[in-house]
Amino acid sequence: MSEFLTLITPEEALRRLNAHVKTLVGVEQVRVTDALGRIVAGDLRSPEDLPAFPRSTMDGYAVRAADTYGASEGLPAYLRVVGEMPMGKHAALTVGKGEAVKVHTGGALADGADAIVMVENTQQVDAETIEVSRPLAPGENLLKIGDDVKKRDLLFPSGHVLRPQDIGAMTALGVTQVSVFLRPRVAIISAGDEVVTPETSPAPGQVRDINTHTISGLVRQTGGVPVPQGIVRDDAAELEKAARRAINDADVVVISSGSSVSTRDMTAAVISSLGKPGVLVHGVSLRPGKPTILAAVNGKPVFGLPGNPVSAMVVFDLFVRPTIFTVGGCPRPPMPPVVTARLTHNIASTTGREDYVPVALAVKDGTYLATPIFGESNLITTLVRAAGLAKIPLDKHGLTAGEMVSVRLF
Amino acid sequence: MSEFLTLITPEEALRRLNAHVKTLVGVEQVRVTDALGRIVAGDLRSPEDLPAFPRSTMDGYAVRAADTYGASEGLPAYLRVVGEMPMGKHAALTVGKGEAVKVHTGGALADGADAIVMVENTQQVDAETIEVSRPLAPGENLLKIGDDVKKRDLLFPSGHVLRPQDIGAMTALGVTQVSVFLRPRVAIISAGDEVVTPETSPAPGQVRDINTHTISGLVRQTGGVPVPQGIVRDDAAELEKAARRAINDADVVVISSGSSVSTRDMTAAVISSLGKPGVLVHGVSLRPGKPTILAAVNGKPVFGLPGNPVSAMVVFDLFVRPTIFTVGGCPRPPMPPVVTARLTHNIASTTGREDYVPVALAVKDGTYLATPIFGESNLITTLVRAAGLAKIPLDKHGLTAGEMVSVRLF
Repeated sequence: MSEFLTLITPEEALRRLNAHVKTLVGVEQVRVTDALGRIVAGDLRSPEDLPAFPRSTMDGYAVRAADTYGASEGLPAYLRVVGEMPMGKHAALTVGKGEAVKVHTGGALADGADAIVMVENTQQVDAETIEVSRPLAPGENLLKIGDDVKKRDLLFPSGHVLRPQDIGAMTALGVTQVSVFLRPRVAIISAGDEVVTPETSPAPGQVRDINTHTISGLVRQTGGVPVPQGIVRDDAAELEKAARRAINDADVVVISSGSSVSTRDMTAAVISSLGKPGVLVHGVSLRPGKPTILAAVNGKPVFGLPGNPVSAMVVFDLFVRPTIFTVGGCPRPPMPPVVTARLTHNIASTTGREDYVPVALAVKDGTYLATPIFGESNLITTLVRAAGLAKIPLDKHGLTAGEMVSVRLF
Repeated sequence: MSEFLTLITPEEALRRLNAHVKTLVGVEQVRVTDALGRIVAGDLRSPEDLPAFPRSTMDGYAVRAADTYGASEGLPAYLRVVGEMPMGKHAALTVGKGEAVKVHTGGALADGADAIVMVENTQQVDAETIEVSRPLAPGENLLKIGDDVKKRDLLFPSGHVLRPQDIGAMTALGVTQVSVFLRPRVAIISAGDEVVTPETSPAPGQVRDINTHTISGLVRQTGGVPVPQGIVRDDAAELEKAARRAINDADVVVISSGSSVSTRDMTAAVISSLGKPGVLVHGVSLRPGKPTILAAVNGKPVFGLPGNPVSAMVVFDLFVRPTIFTVGGCPRPPMPPVVTARLTHNIASTTGREDYVPVALAVKDGTYLATPIFGESNLITTLVRAAGLAKIPLDKHGLTAGEMVSVRLF
């Protein structure tokens, strides 16, 4: 066996790769309403104060707080209602001593007033008079100018991934265009003499391509642009040609190759021939996914993924996903969805190795139950039946039925 | 106060709505490679067996298991290597008694053989001979025809949401087109005399529209098509006109209206005027989100969402999200991402009410820490700073620092 595996932990492996990966510098302006999932390029500061005017947070009356000092149910303050503030306007209404102006939630504060008394704490005495049954502090039940966001406040640091509420925050502040990093282009090469396209009727010995399509979906979910490179024969010269084209055309290269030792060794040799520093990690203390190749060529990450679909998904999640975010300008990727579940069966493992086991999930009495899907790791049905991957940490010699386990949903 | 709130639990509220909501019947054929996130319409069965030929799962030699019976390190079996099975072909090689054919992981099984011996359990004796140091059972280290998927096996039930691995499973089976439900069209109406578009420079008393854009993003994440209807004045006739147009044009209607009691009452009255059964729920034992309106008009769900952004997100997640899936043909929506975290501060609540509190998340010693973001619930910065919403269940009178809490990531 020519293969030399220095097994390091997944965490250490990613650190070694990160040291050689460059972030994209390309930036584009997009409409805020098209920016969902994009990564903010450059710190974004608020162009204005929000709210831009003092606003009531309650239905009630704008008053002078001093007029309510000492008010109680037994000894209420009496105020004269001099008008109603319409929504969407700042009507020329002034609250003088002993006066009140009716206001709705979100309405502007009348001039002269400094607090809002909730309608629940008032009693209508006659058409023009209310009783106030509790004292107010100045500023109560209202937002002052800039209480939500102040002009020049940092709204999002560079690298922030935009979520629905972030889009809403920008529209609230009148930000209609935003500068975002270009989406990383991820080239996907599927290598193997046995691999044919999904449209082909396979001859005996041939199988249709799975990983190009699974990985394309994963890349899309990660905010990247999948750039499938087609199927390449198990031939060093052909693979090298395809890999060179991919590295010129894309920001990240993923090579999914066969699972035989000879194929993996050839993939590693080809990657190393592309440029410096080449292969950084070949072999990780991980199951499935041990024969993973992590490499960098002139600042661009190159991955050699095991051919079987379960391994490919695990390796994508642990290494490719965070790297696509790093390349795309987001140094701290959003947390992947993980639930804590109670294991229904024992799972064997080995201390010093991180294991991921496909599990089905059910809910019982408000707790997730994780049932391992045992079987060959190269079965596509394993992944189709699974709701996620249960993690057996490095330091565990397996897990016992009844133990809690974290499950990465997919 | 004309408002009459019958407070029911969020679970019961959703059940009442579901009883009146119809699933879309429209279906379209899409390319499998464009089907990520779509919902399968009709049970999908496998068109063929996978694998289509007996395949090795290891690097090694195809042998007759009977030739290895009794083999051990001390007393190995000697086999004559008669050839090598190339990848991607079924070469005319036959394994006779005492013979072996070299094979790679994923390669076809040679005729006459019924098991694969791993290369690790063999020793090369000379150019033509190997030693086998352990006995094999028939079928060992190989997949027989249909071991992964059998022809006509159920691959996905109708209503399954397609994930990356499901796309890969279909391409593996030569499925290149798939029948999916049409994406639900979700009309979004933003009502309020104070609301202006993001492009507008607001006059005193006016605020820019937030919820149309936040909700559009949430609808996209849920697989629906947002159909923004623009901003409508707080006028019953105008709102009714907009709502009627929305219900004709879309499959789901979301009305985000102001937070004042009068506005909410008007919204409820307008919804009830649209058709039967009208408003089903007005008020849920939920904070924020108490004044939620759930309604159905001729099988189409209509939602009245509170105006403030945090409430709108909570109500979207609890009611609109599952309903979009139901309408779209998926009766059991994918689990939303939830992590379990340790609370850093006490949170007050009331028994009988479900509370959602925006929290920031950090990781310490492998555990998530959830820090509540206190403050006005109508601040957009609360949502921008939050990583998710911590849930305080109905039966809890608040939670104490140190307790574990589930956090819905967003």
